[in-house]
Amino acid sequence: MAKEAKTLDDLFHDTLKDIYYAEKKILATLPKMAKAAQSEELRAAFEKHQSETEEQIGRLEQVFAAIDKKPLGKTCDAIVGITDEGAEIMKEYKGSPALDAGLLAAAQAVEHYEISRYGTLIAWAEELGVEDAVSLLEETLEEEKATDEALTEIAKSAINQQAEAA
Amino acid sequence: MAKEAKTLDDLFHDTLKDIYYAEKKILATLPKMAKAAQSEELRAAFEKHQSETEEQIGRLEQVFAAIDKKPLGKTCDAIVGITDEGAEIMKEYKGSPALDAGLLAAAQAVEHYEISRYGTLIAWAEELGVEDAVSLLEETLEEEKATDEALTEIAKSAINQQAEAA
Repeated sequence: MAKEAKTLDDLFHDTLKDIYYAEKKILATLPKMAKAAQSEELRAAFEKHQSETEEQIGRLEQVFAAIDKKPLGKTCDAIVGITDEGAEIMKEYKGSPALDAGLLAAAQAVEHYEISRYGTLIAWAEELGVEDAVSLLEETLEEEKATDEALTEIAKSAINQQAEAA
Repeated sequence: MAKEAKTLDDLFHDTLKDIYYAEKKILATLPKMAKAAQSEELRAAFEKHQSETEEQIGRLEQVFAAIDKKPLGKTCDAIVGITDEGAEIMKEYKGSPALDAGLLAAAQAVEHYEISRYGTLIAWAEELGVEDAVSLLEETLEEEKATDEALTEIAKSAINQQAEAA
């Protein structure tokens, strides 16, 4: 199985396994974040993103198929670290008026990790000429960017509400 | 020292400690990435970002001063995970033609984490009315975005070179 020198194909496959693990970790984390959220708007945003994440996992499985590989995850230290920080916020800010702000920040760190990974994977898929992968990954990238923007809007409105209440 | 309920001030301070630790970790990691880089262009980009990171750490110290706190870091699990992945790439792709592509991807994951954190900190500094912090953090955010864009350009040109060589 071992190759003499790893190629861009290997890097694409390794990174695909990384984001596949990450998406599954995110899918397991989102219900906890939705449960912790204080505002209905934030809860709804997490629930919406949970459905999207399920579809994104399905798309990744299609990308694995496009390169004739089985869909397998590989521990992604980055998402483990990012979600650990989110778990710490949920614990330390439980009952605090700043909890939702912390949850929003944690979720945006997740989105930015995904935006970075999907951007990279798209560039490599283009280089490798895996056209089916390009369009699948682009669809997900657009969703991640839209989620990040929606979270920014919720953060703004939450801050305004807090300012008005103060 | 313990407070009844944590506030947005606490969240801002905690997240400042998180990014302060992260920037110091990045500063320690960049020389290793520069040394590993195969192309002169990528090496130069990492070296340039090293100088910027030193200035960004200085700005964070000014932000701590703006909220009357000592500059102290707090382990940031996210950056530990992200840089661990970069270290894995350096090890697994050593001597591979795909090494620079992997280094670029690792560096962009770092940039996106920072972009997310600085965006969040700016929103909170605005809400908290810490004007000095807003301008310092915005200066750094613009640098991080510019670095991410520069890395994207290098990735494109590296891919083109690889394609031409193939």
